[in-house]
Amino acid sequence: MKAAQAVSQSEVFVRTSDGREIDDRLAVEEPLEIRIGLPDGTHKAVSITMRTPGDDGELAAGFLFSEGIITSPDQIKQIRHCGLKIGANKGTLDRASALNSNTIRLDLNDGIDLDLKRLERNFYTTSSCGVCGKASIEALATGVKRIESELTIDDDVVHSLPQKLREAQSVFETTGGLHASALFNADGTLDIVREDVGRHNALDKVIGTKFMTNETPLSDKMLLVSGRASFELVQKALMAGIPVLAAVGAPSSLAVELANEFGMTLIGFVRDERFNIYCGGQRVGLTTTAVHH
Amino acid sequence: MKAAQAVSQSEVFVRTSDGREIDDRLAVEEPLEIRIGLPDGTHKAVSITMRTPGDDGELAAGFLFSEGIITSPDQIKQIRHCGLKIGANKGTLDRASALNSNTIRLDLNDGIDLDLKRLERNFYTTSSCGVCGKASIEALATGVKRIESELTIDDDVVHSLPQKLREAQSVFETTGGLHASALFNADGTLDIVREDVGRHNALDKVIGTKFMTNETPLSDKMLLVSGRASFELVQKALMAGIPVLAAVGAPSSLAVELANEFGMTLIGFVRDERFNIYCGGQRVGLTTTAVHH
Repeated sequence: MKAAQAVSQSEVFVRTSDGREIDDRLAVEEPLEIRIGLPDGTHKAVSITMRTPGDDGELAAGFLFSEGIITSPDQIKQIRHCGLKIGANKGTLDRASALNSNTIRLDLNDGIDLDLKRLERNFYTTSSCGVCGKASIEALATGVKRIESELTIDDDVVHSLPQKLREAQSVFETTGGLHASALFNADGTLDIVREDVGRHNALDKVIGTKFMTNETPLSDKMLLVSGRASFELVQKALMAGIPVLAAVGAPSSLAVELANEFGMTLIGFVRDERFNIYCGGQRVGLTTTAVHH
Repeated sequence: MKAAQAVSQSEVFVRTSDGREIDDRLAVEEPLEIRIGLPDGTHKAVSITMRTPGDDGELAAGFLFSEGIITSPDQIKQIRHCGLKIGANKGTLDRASALNSNTIRLDLNDGIDLDLKRLERNFYTTSSCGVCGKASIEALATGVKRIESELTIDDDVVHSLPQKLREAQSVFETTGGLHASALFNADGTLDIVREDVGRHNALDKVIGTKFMTNETPLSDKMLLVSGRASFELVQKALMAGIPVLAAVGAPSSLAVELANEFGMTLIGFVRDERFNIYCGGQRVGLTTTAVHH
């Protein structure tokens, strides 16, 4: 299950605006095709995502779990990169090329009844008009359950998160080009952080890692994301049972609606010693006087 | 073709970290289903995107053009929101609900030969393994042509872009939750700006607007995007023939590779009176002494 060690930065030669020529590091972006191997030996491509290589197995597992396709790590027989060759050797695994492969395959165990129609509903819009007119939150957020969690957090803990994320990120990246997703415990200690050019991928990597070790639902964790809080991020966090989502940036209207509908605490603009609580404020213990800070 | 006037902000009641309760404005995020109406009367859903309502017709046209599905505005018979109803009245257009509709339909003229296989290649990964092993830029960037443009720009013009974008944005948004895409002329004057919760949507709106008025390829324009430069944004800009893409944030590795391969000038980190040129530097006239600024 160990993902191939992959390069997440690449060096380039750039010209700066003051006329110097310097080396710069770029966040690596490459496509990953996610395939599901069915018990009958066939396999099916379900998604291509532009991602930063690394933790590809966790990304695939997290994606399929947060989309509601798989529900338990026991359903997974193996996850592997595959270097499928065109022609005579088609289907054989070439280990050397597999390590640099942009295809990952998640093979399911026997007896797993996969709803392939659901796959198509999620990844390809069929002729049935699912979101005609005013979209219904319920129709978009299939499979999401209401958050069940007794977690409460102190406002000081919320204030401390961005700095902790920056410290954790600085270990991995100097490019400025990566989004981060991090889980924290109620006392504010960092649990896990993952980075990617795509913010949904960074979250899928976090969720997939926890899913594979059977730690979902993540009822006692807080999630911090480096950018904005979109519908998609709230949906994924809800699927993983995360009770508190904090974003360094702004939430969207639909993100707030969805979080509110399913009992999640959504916090935005967590930076510069401030934040806004959009819903689920009962989980955040606010200091009542402004003197505190 | 005029898109329905849509609300791009919504108001919510939030609790701030210092215990106040205030009104806040959120960027509206809602799903848009894009459908193609074929000359034989059938129609086909090709994408659902989470977007900020407004300029939906331009978004749909820009999306289909930048994905290589349509190539000329002459191919389009009409674009309209549709409020399909479930049940007896299915298929009838309800004008009131259509204005708030999250479905847009682009009907093609007779005689347009649409490559439906291409649609599937673009929006759904089939069992043929398109990106196995090391992905090829050519395979990912089908339909992209090499940039043909004599455009050159002054470094002072590049420095001036972020401030101009901020000024143009402030008219529209106070939420902090929207990405922007803007076209500028060679002298640095603003041509057009569009905003969206999704950065690819903001660019599709810009490109779609120019496509509908038959102004593509945009050989004499510069594009500024508010965030990072990804593969997807470079690909869309290349489809529109834009010779210079400048980003406030960092480019990804694949964005630089693609821009370089097809002769685009790619500039990153355009902020705080600096920028980096990643490729195509011949189009940027750099001041040779640092004294200039």
